[in-house]
Amino acid sequence: MKKKIKDLKQKINQYDFIIIGAGGTALAAAMYAARLGLKTLVLGSTYGTELPIGGVITTTHIVENYPGFIRLSGVELAKKLEEHAKSYKEVTIKNEKVSEIKKNGNCFLVSTENKRNYVGKTILFATGTKWRKLPDSVKGSREFENKGVSYCALCDGPLFKGKVVAVIGGSDSAAKDALLLSEYTKKVYIIYRGEQIHPEPINMERIKKNKKIEIINNTNVIEIKGKNSVESVVLDKPYKGKKELKVQGVFVAIGHIPISDLAKNLGVKLNEKGEIEINHATSETNIPGVYAAGDVTDKPFKQLITGVADGCTAAYSAYQYITKNKILTC
Amino acid sequence: MKKKIKDLKQKINQYDFIIIGAGGTALAAAMYAARLGLKTLVLGSTYGTELPIGGVITTTHIVENYPGFIRLSGVELAKKLEEHAKSYKEVTIKNEKVSEIKKNGNCFLVSTENKRNYVGKTILFATGTKWRKLPDSVKGSREFENKGVSYCALCDGPLFKGKVVAVIGGSDSAAKDALLLSEYTKKVYIIYRGEQIHPEPINMERIKKNKKIEIINNTNVIEIKGKNSVESVVLDKPYKGKKELKVQGVFVAIGHIPISDLAKNLGVKLNEKGEIEINHATSETNIPGVYAAGDVTDKPFKQLITGVADGCTAAYSAYQYITKNKILTC
Repeated sequence: MKKKIKDLKQKINQYDFIIIGAGGTALAAAMYAARLGLKTLVLGSTYGTELPIGGVITTTHIVENYPGFIRLSGVELAKKLEEHAKSYKEVTIKNEKVSEIKKNGNCFLVSTENKRNYVGKTILFATGTKWRKLPDSVKGSREFENKGVSYCALCDGPLFKGKVVAVIGGSDSAAKDALLLSEYTKKVYIIYRGEQIHPEPINMERIKKNKKIEIINNTNVIEIKGKNSVESVVLDKPYKGKKELKVQGVFVAIGHIPISDLAKNLGVKLNEKGEIEINHATSETNIPGVYAAGDVTDKPFKQLITGVADGCTAAYSAYQYITKNKILTC
Repeated sequence: MKKKIKDLKQKINQYDFIIIGAGGTALAAAMYAARLGLKTLVLGSTYGTELPIGGVITTTHIVENYPGFIRLSGVELAKKLEEHAKSYKEVTIKNEKVSEIKKNGNCFLVSTENKRNYVGKTILFATGTKWRKLPDSVKGSREFENKGVSYCALCDGPLFKGKVVAVIGGSDSAAKDALLLSEYTKKVYIIYRGEQIHPEPINMERIKKNKKIEIINNTNVIEIKGKNSVESVVLDKPYKGKKELKVQGVFVAIGHIPISDLAKNLGVKLNEKGEIEINHATSETNIPGVYAAGDVTDKPFKQLITGVADGCTAAYSAYQYITKNKILTC
């Protein structure tokens, strides 16, 4: 009797396809896997970050580059992807953080921090990235976190109504943060260590036309100062004759770090940046039955649309792997 | 004066990114390129097929697997992609068929059948595929084309209301054609030469539940017979004791042929199937400045979502190529 219950329990917790992460890539992969008849579990909301289901796209104000939608909010798009995945009964989404993944016979044993175990015939890492933090060498960067220092313009922007803020970084994300913040604030400085910020041309044009935004290239922030909250930043060279710039907010957009520890511990091959190396035609990693897609991979061009497509490809590869190898049970 | 006019004319016909084809992949690539500031020309509606803008997806009845849309018609989805592309002033779409593409200095000279010339800094082949026709050895297959023999269930299905039809093929497309045709017709036979038809599991389930559909595996059609239009097909082995099956329509779904002649003539490397070989991380072909995406490529998993994503990747690669090589003019 005990054995029977154990078997039953194991069967309940056995899936064809376990997806680590719950961002756009994960949700699209889940939808596709379900269509292929795979019993699919999505774990984490989202893995290793504080983000809700939908992942990093929920922190994007306006999305205009997901083909098929001319313009919608990141939250709206995330909702559509979630609803699409949930429209299939084969998909289960659980808000649990994975602590370890081990090979287990034909299959993989996935353990979560709340002491639950799941067995999967195949695994997809769609764990994404986390924000790169300012280095400790920037005095005050830790001290003023959530007291004026933010990593999410969309989340915290409205708190800076009528104030002066700085965005640190030169990428398209930094530019979009500045554009968004200009809707709330009185003034936005973009402070970039490189020669010239490099957003998408369409966003560069928007920044040029925006009178609230001022760009400071070739400059580093070396200190963040204040009493109870941020009051100024100190630059490594003078801007308009002054090294100290009065700002009440600092938005950091200096890139991302792939969340690939779980994959690494399982033996998945990473590149020197810590990104998961995949076959870009199939989303396969070096371990049979293990796939990766989206921002955590070594894809050079990382966008929601490419992650979504690679997630679908991973689902198809997993389906083929299970069918070819005739993995009926774990 | 003449030279000036010539120069001006040349400038007008000069583009950063010329896309050959006007299917979903092409339209998504155009949108993305425009956002990157590339003056973009989409040629062909769609190239080498009789399909409207949007391409092969317009021949799909219901699309349920494009992430973000739970369920819509292929025509609706194509329209959304077209509107998205057209929402950027940098995008021009022309219904012209390309006859030749040649290297021209830094750039490429694209000539069309109506004797127009365009110069492009970069080229994207998004030419897709055309339907594979029944071999000539199947008697009557040419004679009854458009007289009962069709390659497009969505286009011609409604003409067969209350009739009996056959679908030839065993793929997911064949299955979806059969499901669609069952909505109009009295009965649908799926005739497949292989051991077992192999649609997506979700469509296999639907077929099993559909009382109008009957599957005949391990069987070839060797002749199509009739007077003015199709009246029957002859099989290479008896089915329920008879070699002749009475049908008024034959829908052929036996695969696709990549439309890659223009690419081949330009020196682009193809695989043994005639598909364009690409770097799956960048959509680059073997020729610098020339990209390919979608069904014409050697991607193993070909879906609208993967073509769309690879089209966007190609646009980004083209943008990087133009910027890095500082191609200012042709």
